[in-house]
Amino acid sequence: MAQKPSIPKGTRDFNPQDVAKRNYIVNTIKQQFELFGFQPIETPSFENSETLMGKYGDEGDRLIFKILNSGDFLSKVDDTLYSQKDSNSLGSSISEKALRYDLTVPFARYVVQHQNEIEFPFKRYQIQPVWRADRPQKGRFREFYQCDADVVGSQSLWQEVEFVQLYDAVFTALNLKGVTIKINNRKILSGIAEVIGAQDKLIDFTVALDKLDKIGEEKVKAEMLSKGITQTGIDKLQPLFNLSGSFESQIEQLKTILADSGEGKKGIEELNFIDKTISELQLKTATLQLDVTLARGLNYYTGAIFEVSAPKGVDMGSIGGGGRYDDLTGIFGLKDVSGVGISFGLDRIYLVLEQLYLFPETVTTTVKALFINFGEFEALGCMKAIKQLRSEGINVELYPDAAKMKKQLNYANKRNIDFVVLVGEAELKSNTFTLKNMVTGEQINVVFEDLYKLLQ
Amino acid sequence: MAQKPSIPKGTRDFNPQDVAKRNYIVNTIKQQFELFGFQPIETPSFENSETLMGKYGDEGDRLIFKILNSGDFLSKVDDTLYSQKDSNSLGSSISEKALRYDLTVPFARYVVQHQNEIEFPFKRYQIQPVWRADRPQKGRFREFYQCDADVVGSQSLWQEVEFVQLYDAVFTALNLKGVTIKINNRKILSGIAEVIGAQDKLIDFTVALDKLDKIGEEKVKAEMLSKGITQTGIDKLQPLFNLSGSFESQIEQLKTILADSGEGKKGIEELNFIDKTISELQLKTATLQLDVTLARGLNYYTGAIFEVSAPKGVDMGSIGGGGRYDDLTGIFGLKDVSGVGISFGLDRIYLVLEQLYLFPETVTTTVKALFINFGEFEALGCMKAIKQLRSEGINVELYPDAAKMKKQLNYANKRNIDFVVLVGEAELKSNTFTLKNMVTGEQINVVFEDLYKLLQ
Repeated sequence: MAQKPSIPKGTRDFNPQDVAKRNYIVNTIKQQFELFGFQPIETPSFENSETLMGKYGDEGDRLIFKILNSGDFLSKVDDTLYSQKDSNSLGSSISEKALRYDLTVPFARYVVQHQNEIEFPFKRYQIQPVWRADRPQKGRFREFYQCDADVVGSQSLWQEVEFVQLYDAVFTALNLKGVTIKINNRKILSGIAEVIGAQDKLIDFTVALDKLDKIGEEKVKAEMLSKGITQTGIDKLQPLFNLSGSFESQIEQLKTILADSGEGKKGIEELNFIDKTISELQLKTATLQLDVTLARGLNYYTGAIFEVSAPKGVDMGSIGGGGRYDDLTGIFGLKDVSGVGISFGLDRIYLVLEQLYLFPETVTTTVKALFINFGEFEALGCMKAIKQLRSEGINVELYPDAAKMKKQLNYANKRNIDFVVLVGEAELKSNTFTLKNMVTGEQINVVFEDLYKLLQ
Repeated sequence: MAQKPSIPKGTRDFNPQDVAKRNYIVNTIKQQFELFGFQPIETPSFENSETLMGKYGDEGDRLIFKILNSGDFLSKVDDTLYSQKDSNSLGSSISEKALRYDLTVPFARYVVQHQNEIEFPFKRYQIQPVWRADRPQKGRFREFYQCDADVVGSQSLWQEVEFVQLYDAVFTALNLKGVTIKINNRKILSGIAEVIGAQDKLIDFTVALDKLDKIGEEKVKAEMLSKGITQTGIDKLQPLFNLSGSFESQIEQLKTILADSGEGKKGIEELNFIDKTISELQLKTATLQLDVTLARGLNYYTGAIFEVSAPKGVDMGSIGGGGRYDDLTGIFGLKDVSGVGISFGLDRIYLVLEQLYLFPETVTTTVKALFINFGEFEALGCMKAIKQLRSEGINVELYPDAAKMKKQLNYANKRNIDFVVLVGEAELKSNTFTLKNMVTGEQINVVFEDLYKLLQ
């Protein structure tokens, strides 16, 4: 009956060190979210299928994990449908629930469902796992956490300013200095498409432009041509490829390029406000950078678009992203509620901190001291001291069995416990404790008050 | 395309107040777990079906949520099997994964899978959601959190002592005084069954005995008779129904009843050790009580059995439970690893704290002050102060739009924000801040240093 145990591909077990490090990141993010006035909500792990299906495109629908109805799920399936043996149609009639695919759609559902209890503008954060039936690969999992902060119910650009500050605050608190917060605006992209006469090809245009970093100018142009954008239009783009200099000077160049586009000018105005305000308020360790090629799920965003990249020299792709979407809750029947939000990539941030040795050493230390177990009588003496130390907030434990000394010391070593406390007959008599430093090997005999002070 | 949004039955949305209160409980439990030397692990939300199926009995198997295979899941189902249209057999061939049903089986799987990386005895805690396709009712959900602490790899009774202390420490920290920690031992139950000649009816016997509180002595006896336990046997039980007095005196009475049972005497010895040691160490606010009728999932436990009930006057059933199981990892091929653990019932503890008004008021306060937005220029002044306050760890926010004063004050009231800060033209000129106490209505004009001190 013995089974060789394993876990589903794309999922992970987290050992105590992993959990401690992940919690360090999550708690740092949470703390900053709360400093900025965001409040936590939680939504169920699974939603009704109709809440999720059709919200992420065809590819998304395929990647959603569906939950099989409980009980005799086939009893309600009619024979004609069943006889077709078609996975799609049978699937929807034997599964009514699906695992959360992201936090944004459940959040939109939450806002609409609870609109009468919510004070708008509603600043919420949510840190929960999501599930995707993606092909697992390095750094891509089927279960992973998203860390999102969003504001709904305000069109104010101060939100965008706050999100730039929030990114800066979180990465500074994580001691990850030198990240770049790239910003763009959907209106800039629409404006450019308008100017080059490719309004109807906005998606093709931005998908191609988004690749500039990876494939270079010539290939981007070739792709645009192949998608039906005219050579004249592409020629008009030339100044865009030559954009350079500071945020401000790029804004000036954009003004020329977008002189004839009302929407483009609106985008420039928004970017300009954010840049000016951030310059005034100053960032701690991050840099704000204009990136007109930045698109990210364009269909979604209607205003600002954000993406954060790790400090130079760390090859990691984006470690955060977000933007403004003017009509998120419309799909659930609540119109004209503007939202803007950002997300932190927990797994990638973890890898970056690991690579740069930025996890504080104290993160993974757990127990301060192990009390050696010499037998029932001595152990009782230990337990009295242990009880007091724990009441004072000091993590200590007793080795549960009166095993050989070597075995107990070995356990302390393996668990990276810095101190062991020895209470034998002599110590019990003199009401003292022998404290052994496992790193230096040094050993001293002390009374309880001193033990407490040394372990504090 | 508008949908009326809802969530699956048996699941819950948690609003910011709910989350804050739940986190208060979870963080208190976590803190005590760590003081006692337990380390966190996390396992995936779904496991391979064969890891879970068959571990919780037939009823359990039915309540496990199965995940539909992705893609064209029917393509691998052979036509003969398909034509039977049988939910059970089709179900197992179109679903390979299932949602976690509890934390114990995944923990056993974890221990076996990672046995070479683990230092034994392994003290782990795990606080994660589990899912059960149970019929939802008051206080019973399809998604709920379990909070478990277990030790594997030691048979020492010091663990049982520590778990009694841990229960006491957690409920004391939650300010929930007067809980009763009931304890029993599987060996006592086996011993009694042996003495009355009902070894082969141990389950029937304990199931009936477990109901003593609810249905009374006569009905318990009637049930035992109906299950084939002899009248002579039941007569021998009489002293058990009359057990009374302190833990110690009950132990004395048990010694007489179990004089002829080796296993029963072993159980008495264990209980006696735990009772004596706890008397010596003393509990802070809880009471340890012997309850020979306590059974809980008996098939599972082999030694101590724990259950915690809320303080007298609170009608809530058990708010925690656990026990020792000698061969948990055997199902995954690792023999002779003894485990003992306890669990906290988060949802019920929540209800008890709510009923007794034990949540500290500070738990649900979030933002310390709201800065009123009078327009772009004033808002920039506010943001400079806000940035500094946040750096000092004070949660503050700017109302995002320059809306009417009344609307902004209303928002502060609804969100229970105690202070608003007004920075208008005059304040900007004098470099001061007007701080309004929303509770008293009092208003004062202060410089930044004083603002900081008042909000601290």
